[in-house]
Amino acid sequence: MTNVDTDVALVMAVIRPEKLADTKQALANAGAPSLTVTDVSGRGSQPVMTEQWRGEEYTVDLHQKVKVECVVADAPVDDVVDAIREAAHTGESGDGKIFVLPVADAVQIRTGDSGTDAV
Amino acid sequence: MTNVDTDVALVMAVIRPEKLADTKQALANAGAPSLTVTDVSGRGSQPVMTEQWRGEEYTVDLHQKVKVECVVADAPVDDVVDAIREAAHTGESGDGKIFVLPVADAVQIRTGDSGTDAV
Amino acid sequence: MTNVDTDVALVMAVIRPEKLADTKQALANAGAPSLTVTDVSGRGSQPVMTEQWRGEEYTVDLHQKVKVECVVADAPVDDVVDAIREAAHTGESGDGKIFVLPVADAVQIRTGDSGTDAV
Ligand SMILES: Nc1ncnc2c1ncn2[C@@H]1O[C@H](COP(=O)(O)OP(=O)(O)OP(=O)(O)O)[C@@H](O)[C@H]1O
Ligand SMILES: Nc1ncnc2c1ncn2[C@@H]1O[C@H](COP(=O)(O)OP(=O)(O)OP(=O)(O)O)[C@@H](O)[C@H]1O
Ligand SMILES: Nc1ncnc2c1ncn2[C@@H]1O[C@H](COP(=O)(O)OP(=O)(O)OP(=O)(O)O)[C@@H](O)[C@H]1O
Ligand SMILES: [Mg+2]
Ligand SMILES: [Mg+2]
Ligand SMILES: [Mg+2]
Repeated sequence: MTNVDTDVALVMAVIRPEKLADTKQALANAGAPSLTVTDVSGRGSQPVMTEQWRGEEYTVDLHQKVKVECVVADAPVDDVVDAIREAAHTGESGDGKIFVLPVADAVQIRTGDSGTDAV
Repeated sequence: MTNVDTDVALVMAVIRPEKLADTKQALANAGAPSLTVTDVSGRGSQPVMTEQWRGEEYTVDLHQKVKVECVVADAPVDDVVDAIREAAHTGESGDGKIFVLPVADAVQIRTGDSGTDAV
Repeated sequence: MTNVDTDVALVMAVIRPEKLADTKQALANAGAPSLTVTDVSGRGSQPVMTEQWRGEEYTVDLHQKVKVECVVADAPVDDVVDAIREAAHTGESGDGKIFVLPVADAVQIRTGDSGTDAV
């Protein structure tokens, strides 16, 4: 049914919201300006944190993050991953992750183009 | 660990919000009524636009879009892609993209069914 | 370009919002505490429902759900899927679905680690 075409990949990154602007710029510089952004929340492997609010202790187990998705064909995936990794990095816990998923096909709705031309 | 079963695919489309109703109808007509919808924003390859608001110029670089995800097994992927492409099309820049990703397995939580039966 | 490494998988579940807390706990118990959560809406295969609001009949065709995404490498995918399936189950229509997608690569932004070490 689908024929996995490894020339196209979805680079999905979960990053700090305050790093979105730099990440968009870095992606454009890497030749991959197209992207989709989703507000998400999440947690990594660090222990749950306890915070204070109006004198009450409560547990923060999900942190606001931003998901950035870029489907790339022309730009090398490694360059796109490196661009995000550098732009989103602070060195503190919670910087996020980048995942690369195979994409079997792509279609540009306006033109009907498919495959690598559509990305 | 995962055994890529190309009989199941995730069709992920990023479309104009005003095309969601037609797209849902088209998917139902194509035999693939099940879907997940996410509010997203994004940009494609067109240049950044400058807009005016209360006399101020500002840059719009992310546009509101809707992400539609359909995991399909029974309906042919091509029919599902064509249904979205036709329903979401205006011919103007910004119509969006459709990406097809391989799915290794699916489980219906209510029944515990897995594989193509679960989709 | 991407080399599908089936040792890493993305487990994507669409569940009832009220089952998120139990699902997070079950994932932590299964050794897979890291996750990303997105507010979504969707519909499955059941017929569209008609509801009343202030005496007016209207059609509900998209229900609020939560998408949970876990990229896993160390924990067996089957254990992660079972944990979600059990925690999110009510037996009523609308419990949701779990999809497993192959992941070709992963990078931890803080450390730069990649592959299974990054998950
Ligand atoms: N395995 C994973 N699956 C899904 N989402 C993840 C995963 N790991 C991290 N995330 C997402 O990335 C966000 C940031 O993760 P984070 O950087 O804290 O990961 P970590 O493994 O704890 O690394 P660090 O030690 O650098 O904090 C999380 O809030 C979550 O949304
Ligand atoms: N390569 C991509 N990766 C991720 N998301 C994309 C990609 N291309 C487009 N999108 C998403 O689709 C939306 C619409 O894209 P758009 O149709 O403008 O793409 P385009 O390549 O500029 O095509 P067009 O020339 O028809 O405008 C974007 O706002 C973004 O959310
Ligand atoms: N094939 C699919 N593709 C994408 N999302 C899906 C799919 N099936 C279900 N979903 C998502 O899961 C949510 C819950 O689906 P639901 O459990 O109602 O599925 P169903 O097939 O109707 O099963 P049930 O008979 O148990 O109700 C939907 O609102 C939608 O967001
Ligand atoms: Mg962390
Ligand atoms: Mg465009
Ligand atoms: Mg249902």
